[in-house]
Amino acid sequence: MKKSFWSPFLSALTPYTAGEQPQDRRYVKLNTNENPYPPSPKVKEALAAFSVDRLRLYPSPDADLLRDAIAEAEGVSRENVFCGNGSDEVLALCVPAFFKGGRGAAFADITYSFYPVFCDFFSVSYTQVPLKEDYTMDLAGLGKADADGVFFTNPNAPTGIGVGLEETEKFVAENPGKLIVADEAYMGFFGQSALPLTKKYPNLLVVKTFSKYYALAGIRCGYAVGNEALIRGLFAAKDCFNSYPVDALCQAVCAAAVGDKAYYAAAAEKVKSERSRLRAELVRLGFFVPESASNFLFAGHEKGGEFIYRGLKERGVLVRFWNTEKLKKFCRITVGAPEENDALLSALREML
Amino acid sequence: MKKSFWSPFLSALTPYTAGEQPQDRRYVKLNTNENPYPPSPKVKEALAAFSVDRLRLYPSPDADLLRDAIAEAEGVSRENVFCGNGSDEVLALCVPAFFKGGRGAAFADITYSFYPVFCDFFSVSYTQVPLKEDYTMDLAGLGKADADGVFFTNPNAPTGIGVGLEETEKFVAENPGKLIVADEAYMGFFGQSALPLTKKYPNLLVVKTFSKYYALAGIRCGYAVGNEALIRGLFAAKDCFNSYPVDALCQAVCAAAVGDKAYYAAAAEKVKSERSRLRAELVRLGFFVPESASNFLFAGHEKGGEFIYRGLKERGVLVRFWNTEKLKKFCRITVGAPEENDALLSALREML
Repeated sequence: MKKSFWSPFLSALTPYTAGEQPQDRRYVKLNTNENPYPPSPKVKEALAAFSVDRLRLYPSPDADLLRDAIAEAEGVSRENVFCGNGSDEVLALCVPAFFKGGRGAAFADITYSFYPVFCDFFSVSYTQVPLKEDYTMDLAGLGKADADGVFFTNPNAPTGIGVGLEETEKFVAENPGKLIVADEAYMGFFGQSALPLTKKYPNLLVVKTFSKYYALAGIRCGYAVGNEALIRGLFAAKDCFNSYPVDALCQAVCAAAVGDKAYYAAAAEKVKSERSRLRAELVRLGFFVPESASNFLFAGHEKGGEFIYRGLKERGVLVRFWNTEKLKKFCRITVGAPEENDALLSALREML
Repeated sequence: MKKSFWSPFLSALTPYTAGEQPQDRRYVKLNTNENPYPPSPKVKEALAAFSVDRLRLYPSPDADLLRDAIAEAEGVSRENVFCGNGSDEVLALCVPAFFKGGRGAAFADITYSFYPVFCDFFSVSYTQVPLKEDYTMDLAGLGKADADGVFFTNPNAPTGIGVGLEETEKFVAENPGKLIVADEAYMGFFGQSALPLTKKYPNLLVVKTFSKYYALAGIRCGYAVGNEALIRGLFAAKDCFNSYPVDALCQAVCAAAVGDKAYYAAAAEKVKSERSRLRAELVRLGFFVPESASNFLFAGHEKGGEFIYRGLKERGVLVRFWNTEKLKKFCRITVGAPEENDALLSALREML
């Protein structure tokens, strides 16, 4: 038998499965929560102005150009900002930086399914706290968990349900001994960000991404905002893995995007308006759909998520489903552009 | 006292220190082994042709567009190629993928100083095998080390010394039970790559970077070539950390570069010609300089590396030195463009 060079450690891991990313573009893609609108025109300008010859040089290892742009947009200082290769990398680095060698992490049982994978990859234990009957997060339960910190996904995925700023502050204030990592990937579509609270609470780290609200999933960039000690911890973890995770083009592109508040606010309003319309139509078609604070809908149907997924895929529309006991009735459907949502609704009317 | 949220694990780590990257451009930068020549003109064309609106979509999670371009350029199949966010990320992922939970890794005591940091980050043990008296790598010693595999840096850094293809094949063939990770960051300036041997030896993985030969340090991309089982192992490790590490712009830029063989071969010839000239001049100035197979020179002087580094920095020239017993006589000097090398030599003549 041929020797396998996979480590015993690797052989025991279960990697995360991302949504399908067909590159042939034949589908109406409502499965990975991308923004239906293009990035700000300022992104195009920034790319056109970029001097290609500069690419022969390493970028700033700490992504200082982009940190400054984010600090200005968010009303904090450079020292409060850390940038990574997607918010996935930022969240992954939180695990060794803050949760390893102690009591581990806690998070909801139904939430972003990469958290347990990160924990296993860094040999960190975790506690999964069940959602409540109404699919909302059990904040009291998360606070009581025997853990050094919490991944607090707000709005949560795949439920789309958001926690208002007042309730978030109460949760952070009541748990001063726990680091609350607020994963706000979808917060741009809700508008209740805890980011300003990072000045008041040293146990709060807010993580954001350029992939959704900023319509830049293709560029891979995310960031964390928090007090200096937390940010220094993320830098120390980064410098044990990869010195220069944010490339020079990415910095230029994201710095341009974060400065164009008006463009993105208008795009988000269009998404929110379609979200209302789509939800009402889905309810009319017999779906159970909680109010969404994000750019997707969590849609349950008695025929089951897999039936809906397969029927839609046959008809050229991609959505996401999970083959697990608690989620099997549901699909997660990204709010697309009006014509994409119409295509989804036509396909569903044909199927049901 | 305020509670620290740093994990006990993080507090015990010593991060890697990258070379200085002053962003003000006032220095002649001969400290981080960047290519003195710009990227291929095809990179500019690829950027100009890139449709910015596509950035709203996630890239191919496995970087298939770029894998195909690399496979074609290297004469292998897509299944033999893995891409990461810099070769640093590729090398870092090798540690949990191949060396964790077993006997750990081995590498030279004087080599790329990120390897022990990667190992500590993933709690993997390692053996450091001393260089021989003449600063060459002790391949017999590395073969005998009690480890599951070896980081075999060729040409080695910071010595710049290369191992010829015949000797490399012997090393790989004599150690069928050890995974040999050939870190060929500087191989483009030597021309003895072990990459074709990956078809013959399942225990060989070759790692390359776009940062040096391809003059794209600013874009952060590296890749590994090896048999399918090894590549699948790297994908499994990646999917425990970050699903989409190589962004869409990066894929387009690097695919354009890897296709322009003539341009890069000509640029490397210019670097090699300057390398000869610079080495001869340094020897004339009293330096001890081993023959270099890379784009930098390992230059020892009786006055010590720190003296040379400080004197040069005062005169506007950056080189790298290490304040350790074995390296304290040396500086590592990147081979720059002719005028940069002249600036270095003038400064040295003034100092010595």
